[in-house]
Amino acid sequence: MSKFIVIEGLEGAGKSSAVGYVTDYLAAHGIKRVECTREPGGTPLAERMRAIVKEVHEERLTIEAELLLMYASRVQLVETRIKPALADGVWVVGDRHDLSSQAYQGGGRGIDAKLIGAIKQAVLGDFKPDLTLYLDIDPAIGLQRARHRGELDRIELEQLGFFVRTRTRYLELAAQDDSIKVIDAGKTPAEVKAAIESALGHYLASEPSCIPG
Amino acid sequence: MSKFIVIEGLEGAGKSSAVGYVTDYLAAHGIKRVECTREPGGTPLAERMRAIVKEVHEERLTIEAELLLMYASRVQLVETRIKPALADGVWVVGDRHDLSSQAYQGGGRGIDAKLIGAIKQAVLGDFKPDLTLYLDIDPAIGLQRARHRGELDRIELEQLGFFVRTRTRYLELAAQDDSIKVIDAGKTPAEVKAAIESALGHYLASEPSCIPG
Ligand SMILES: Nc1ncnc2c1ncn2[C@@H]1O[C@H](COP(=O)(O)OP(=O)(O)OP(=O)(O)O)[C@@H](O)[C@H]1O
Ligand SMILES: Nc1ncnc2c1ncn2[C@@H]1O[C@H](COP(=O)(O)OP(=O)(O)OP(=O)(O)O)[C@@H](O)[C@H]1O
Ligand SMILES: [Mg+2]
Ligand SMILES: [Mg+2]
Repeated sequence: MSKFIVIEGLEGAGKSSAVGYVTDYLAAHGIKRVECTREPGGTPLAERMRAIVKEVHEERLTIEAELLLMYASRVQLVETRIKPALADGVWVVGDRHDLSSQAYQGGGRGIDAKLIGAIKQAVLGDFKPDLTLYLDIDPAIGLQRARHRGELDRIELEQLGFFVRTRTRYLELAAQDDSIKVIDAGKTPAEVKAAIESALGHYLASEPSCIPG
Repeated sequence: MSKFIVIEGLEGAGKSSAVGYVTDYLAAHGIKRVECTREPGGTPLAERMRAIVKEVHEERLTIEAELLLMYASRVQLVETRIKPALADGVWVVGDRHDLSSQAYQGGGRGIDAKLIGAIKQAVLGDFKPDLTLYLDIDPAIGLQRARHRGELDRIELEQLGFFVRTRTRYLELAAQDDSIKVIDAGKTPAEVKAAIESALGHYLASEPSCIPG
């Protein structure tokens, strides 16, 4: 049975790099039908929602509108791409998913976790990733890496305290959920890659039906 | 104290025309600081959400994403324009507001009313219009009027049954809420105008503090 694997973490944690490590590892283990997604976005309509959230505007985007746009984008992606792929036996590797909203909107923005949970339950029900790899990074280091890469977007321009609160919430949530594995993303790329491969190896070994005979 | 007055109804019911009758009536009664809004939309960012909902796309917009976009647009408008205007003593006349989501997404699309209520409560709390004028029209007549006006948008292209369910829900909700007045919008423009002025007259008489000395 195909699985939904999600990479999570702050800006510059190394998520996009990690997506590549995961797909390479899956391919090396005979899993070749893999789709990659990113959030917010991942479909043409969801990418339009992403743009509203990411661009720097003169108008202040309220934190409630931001939260609802994140979930609008997510449910659009889940219903039109992720669920159909999984139903078709295709694996999905996601660059961010629901944990981002819980960490950024809940921890970073300070929106009540119960309120976020109510919206999530209303539109996604019990849908969730099979495995999440959370790349844990010191926010200052992550932002420095992201800055090297180019212009910062509206969210990346937040104060450091925002990312510190977001990271704390990520770690709290990871501690409560066995399907979330914490990867130390402050190490070298080679070390991060090895840690991801080790986590994937353990996961696949625990799900023997996953690996093509 | 300034008030939030909303015009509701199906496509072609005469909402945009009614907004003009209301502002003229308020001006004639000494109320000149009035702002008009429309939903979805009403701010530059909310208009971008409106476009996603209204344009005809190749990609199917899921009903959950549509619902969340409506609320994202609404909370953005309420927090950045409507509440500041009311706090400043300016009256607000809205072309659609929350009742539209309850009628279209609840009645038309068939989304659970409790789920819609949970999202509404989460982001808008107890904020609601002081007076709503619901322009009741036979959907076939309304769509014919709207068609005369130009190209139909994604929502206007729905089947008649969708609008019949939406109208039924509008009438059910109006029957349960004293702040919603039903106006027969099948009559001539002059008759509709008179009915709106009468409803406004009753409302202002019941709120004597509204009318400038
Ligand atoms: N372990 C690492 N050590 C040092 N630099 C790294 C490491 N991993 C990635 N980088 C570099 O940091 C930058 C950000 O990496 P990447 O784009 O993978 O992160 P990201 O989490 O996807 O960022 P964003 O949230 O902005 O999409 C890139 O320039 C990348 O080459
Ligand atoms: N009472 C009426 N009798 C006949 N035609 C009317 C009446 N009221 C409005 N119209 C006409 O019907 C068309 C739609 O009116 P209007 O734009 O005010 O409706 P609306 O509810 O705002 O529509 P939409 O939902 O598409 O914005 C216009 O061409 C208008 O002139
Ligand atoms: Mg990335
Ligand atoms: Mg109109």
